[in-house]
Amino acid sequence: MGTIYGLGLGPGDPDLMTVKADRLLRNARHVAFFRKAGRKGQARQIVDGLIPQGAVEFAMEYPVTTEIPVSDPRYNEILSSFYTEVCDHLRGLAQAGEDVVVLCEGDPFFYGSFMHLYTRLADDVQVEVVPAITGMSGAWTATGAPVTWGDDVLTVLMGTLPEDTLTRHIRATDALVVMKIGRNIEKVESALRAAGRYDDAWLVQYATMPKQQVCRLSERDGVTPYFSIIIVHGQGRRP
Amino acid sequence: MGTIYGLGLGPGDPDLMTVKADRLLRNARHVAFFRKAGRKGQARQIVDGLIPQGAVEFAMEYPVTTEIPVSDPRYNEILSSFYTEVCDHLRGLAQAGEDVVVLCEGDPFFYGSFMHLYTRLADDVQVEVVPAITGMSGAWTATGAPVTWGDDVLTVLMGTLPEDTLTRHIRATDALVVMKIGRNIEKVESALRAAGRYDDAWLVQYATMPKQQVCRLSERDGVTPYFSIIIVHGQGRRP
Repeated sequence: MGTIYGLGLGPGDPDLMTVKADRLLRNARHVAFFRKAGRKGQARQIVDGLIPQGAVEFAMEYPVTTEIPVSDPRYNEILSSFYTEVCDHLRGLAQAGEDVVVLCEGDPFFYGSFMHLYTRLADDVQVEVVPAITGMSGAWTATGAPVTWGDDVLTVLMGTLPEDTLTRHIRATDALVVMKIGRNIEKVESALRAAGRYDDAWLVQYATMPKQQVCRLSERDGVTPYFSIIIVHGQGRRP
Repeated sequence: MGTIYGLGLGPGDPDLMTVKADRLLRNARHVAFFRKAGRKGQARQIVDGLIPQGAVEFAMEYPVTTEIPVSDPRYNEILSSFYTEVCDHLRGLAQAGEDVVVLCEGDPFFYGSFMHLYTRLADDVQVEVVPAITGMSGAWTATGAPVTWGDDVLTVLMGTLPEDTLTRHIRATDALVVMKIGRNIEKVESALRAAGRYDDAWLVQYATMPKQQVCRLSERDGVTPYFSIIIVHGQGRRP
């Protein structure tokens, strides 16, 4: 029986992959990764040049769901059949004795897509998760200032949440990370203003990657749909 | 002029260090690390066997502050003079053209001690922070279940906070991480009970290290002062 590795790649700079991930990748015979139809795939892009010649690549292309609201039951059904289908393929490989490396941006167990494969595979075959640096660690490091001090409370929010939920949580926290902000940027900004934290907020795009950009949120010039993270630093005890 | 590296080591398994940290460490001429008086130092222990022969080690021994409450101004004063003193030494090395690697458990900008050096050095010499896997990533990976799904809110709390603050934040979040729990374990448990999350909580000790232990909090048998993290998993959308 082979092993399926949920291989965390970290925030984007291949030099920030773990020694373990680097080794597993350089010896991989089967490499799987998610991507949108017609795209190269962000995870695949991070490891360009690191996959050994002759490795078999398996692109797991997300079904197009842009016409269906997330709240529609059909949305979950379509995604669920997609995950079931790719898992059948991965399970088959593992049962035939092959190891498979599944590329995961960031840390697999932190808002990742790999967990949808993990829960479908872990009862049948050996699955090992290799943790990695989260995108948010890459982002706060890029701001050049510690995100949390002393007893600071840190809250991590998704920009997809309703505005009043965002505002309530932002008011209650010391340090803040907001992810999934692409199309939600104006709602997030409005929540930050209502909570009195807008002027403290930083926008980090493509953290640790060649295109990295760091600016105060109030000075932003557009926002990218991917790899954009908002950071508000805590102000806790600092001897 | 040399560079001072705040070198994140990750949660404890040297195989989970980044490729970059591994390379910097194996080529280091000066290696500095915090430790308590009379101890080897947790960060130093992680890299045992990785530091090159002939490298100069600089143990930064914390002053003994156990008799002084954290709220006493003298506590901050003693720590502050300590940081100033070790920074004078590190600055001297960098100004003499030497690179210095400062070992940091976890991720340097996430509740780390390195930030107290960073703020004192960054105006005078070149300081570079190398991010790493946080201890909490190591802990939730060890539980074998994703910590956050979909739009889950994640809150990170220090066990040193007052009980009512802990309870209020635990009530308001989906997923939870509690760190610095050693002597605060009973207070944290009481807050988890008051917020109705005690039965969902996991205790991870020495995550990713040979002594790793994972159990439900309700089944714990003691708790270690270091490297103990409580995790409550989110229950968000899962297609």
